[in-house]
Amino acid sequence: MAKIRPVGDRVVVKPAAKEEVTKSGIVIPDTAKEKPQEGTVVAVGSGRLLDNGERAALEVREGDRVLFAKYSGTEFKLDGEEYLVLKESDILAVLS
Amino acid sequence: MAKIRPVGDRVVVKPAAKEEVTKSGIVIPDTAKEKPQEGTVVAVGSGRLLDNGERAALEVREGDRVLFAKYSGTEFKLDGEEYLVLKESDILAVLS
Amino acid sequence: MAKIRPVGDRVVVKPAAKEEVTKSGIVIPDTAKEKPQEGTVVAVGSGRLLDNGERAALEVREGDRVLFAKYSGTEFKLDGEEYLVLKESDILAVLS
Amino acid sequence: MAKIRPVGDRVVVKPAAKEEVTKSGIVIPDTAKEKPQEGTVVAVGSGRLLDNGERAALEVREGDRVLFAKYSGTEFKLDGEEYLVLKESDILAVLS
Amino acid sequence: MAKIRPVGDRVVVKPAAKEEVTKSGIVIPDTAKEKPQEGTVVAVGSGRLLDNGERAALEVREGDRVLFAKYSGTEFKLDGEEYLVLKESDILAVLS
Amino acid sequence: MAKIRPVGDRVVVKPAAKEEVTKSGIVIPDTAKEKPQEGTVVAVGSGRLLDNGERAALEVREGDRVLFAKYSGTEFKLDGEEYLVLKESDILAVLS
Amino acid sequence: MAKIRPVGDRVVVKPAAKEEVTKSGIVIPDTAKEKPQEGTVVAVGSGRLLDNGERAALEVREGDRVLFAKYSGTEFKLDGEEYLVLKESDILAVLS
Repeated sequence: MAKIRPVGDRVVVKPAAKEEVTKSGIVIPDTAKEKPQEGTVVAVGSGRLLDNGERAALEVREGDRVLFAKYSGTEFKLDGEEYLVLKESDILAVLS
Repeated sequence: MAKIRPVGDRVVVKPAAKEEVTKSGIVIPDTAKEKPQEGTVVAVGSGRLLDNGERAALEVREGDRVLFAKYSGTEFKLDGEEYLVLKESDILAVLS
Repeated sequence: MAKIRPVGDRVVVKPAAKEEVTKSGIVIPDTAKEKPQEGTVVAVGSGRLLDNGERAALEVREGDRVLFAKYSGTEFKLDGEEYLVLKESDILAVLS
Repeated sequence: MAKIRPVGDRVVVKPAAKEEVTKSGIVIPDTAKEKPQEGTVVAVGSGRLLDNGERAALEVREGDRVLFAKYSGTEFKLDGEEYLVLKESDILAVLS
Repeated sequence: MAKIRPVGDRVVVKPAAKEEVTKSGIVIPDTAKEKPQEGTVVAVGSGRLLDNGERAALEVREGDRVLFAKYSGTEFKLDGEEYLVLKESDILAVLS
Repeated sequence: MAKIRPVGDRVVVKPAAKEEVTKSGIVIPDTAKEKPQEGTVVAVGSGRLLDNGERAALEVREGDRVLFAKYSGTEFKLDGEEYLVLKESDILAVLS
Repeated sequence: MAKIRPVGDRVVVKPAAKEEVTKSGIVIPDTAKEKPQEGTVVAVGSGRLLDNGERAALEVREGDRVLFAKYSGTEFKLDGEEYLVLKESDILAVLS
């Protein structure tokens, strides 16, 4: 997604629609205290600024299928599609 | 905008008028928990002071079209126009 | 478990079923203020990002039998099985 | 102002009188959540102490016209004039 | 105790029985705001992870008789015996 | 004052009597949110411990006339005189 | 006091009895917001762990007469005597 570039250690994620979740085999229990959500990374930032002034590249990549904490990040719409801007630290795991 | 120079890791942003938002294709959902806002960077500071005494240049540049967290920063008026002073960390993403 | 890769200093743990706990000899007192739980590490992240930009490998390994703070982490289901994503710092000890 | 030397990363600011604000073109909206105030830097400290024991010189200079967060700092009077002692981080921007 | 290995800067302590406390000469006043407790270190972790990626060995050793803050740590039972997992920073002093 | 040596980045200050304040020209407005107080430094500590194990010498010196935040520090009496032990960071400015 | 060795940047202090306080000339005002207390250091820890893995030796020494914040630390009794375990940062000043 060339239209948006997250700043620092942020990523843009497209949340998965309900049907997709079923296909991947991941099911989030309704009773979970803190429910994770599934989505696809569509853009990653330049990384976290280190104390020596360099940037540490993010661990997640464009196209990664990820689990993230449900109520984290900021929602926005671009060309009619819903996205989330998250910090990489809100990403729990990469699915493969 | 030569008349104002933000200090440290701050930037000055001119918030987008409503019509502009529509043109760029970004629509902010009314129901979003934390709604981002769109604007244009008009001045950037000298960067964050690192532990070694150097400054890390900001990642956003003058002229960048940006998404930022809605209630962040400090509003002021200069020559009749409204601006915001924000920390770079309040900038979520650069649009292109 | 090749299907999930935790991010950073996170691990994925399969919580032990009640019968297993009995076998290992560990019994968690009902009256404990903060009760630990037992489980098996099924996947580990790439480690904590250090200030110099390197990653410090995790101390726990895939297959480790661990004690962890009971209400920590995030639950999810994969192929019908329940798992938890935890930070390594939520792991109290490795049993052997 | 030779009579006062701020400590560390502090600065002494003489708040602008109302008429001056009008002249500079800056108008602070009455409805702003966090209103900035305008003033002139009259003394600067030796800078922030870095981890290596050196001092990082302040970015603002004596004579700078500045915007600062309105309720920050500590007021005092010297020879009948009102001043504020602020941390440099309370200074939002330098006007020129 | 070969059966348990604490993670990072944690230690496993076997709390002292009441009679033992009397023998050692330590008496905890009933009126103390924050009462310490006595016990024996039975296992120590690999140490705190430093910023350079190395581990700083713990200061307490297996077999040390220690005073620790009373309500710190997490209780568990192993082979019918009660233990606590604590951070080394919860250990106040070593008795000798 | 040879009888007391503050620890680390602390200083001992003798608060100014009311008459002295008038003489120096400093007047603290009654309506100030956070009122500073005037005093004289009578002893300084060895300085803040840096990450490399060295000490950074304090910026204020014995004999300095200082402004400090009014309700900071700890009061004590020595030989019938009242003093305050403050952290150097509670000192706002040095008067000269 | 060879029987107790504080951990890290902790010290063991024997609080002064009331008569002793009078002799030394220090009097704590009854109306002080945060009253300091007087005592004698009887044991010191190995020092604070630095980021490079070394220990910074404590500034206070065995035998030092010290002022410390009144409600800090943890009380315990050893051989019928009352002591306190404190962090060095709770020690305000050394008296001489």
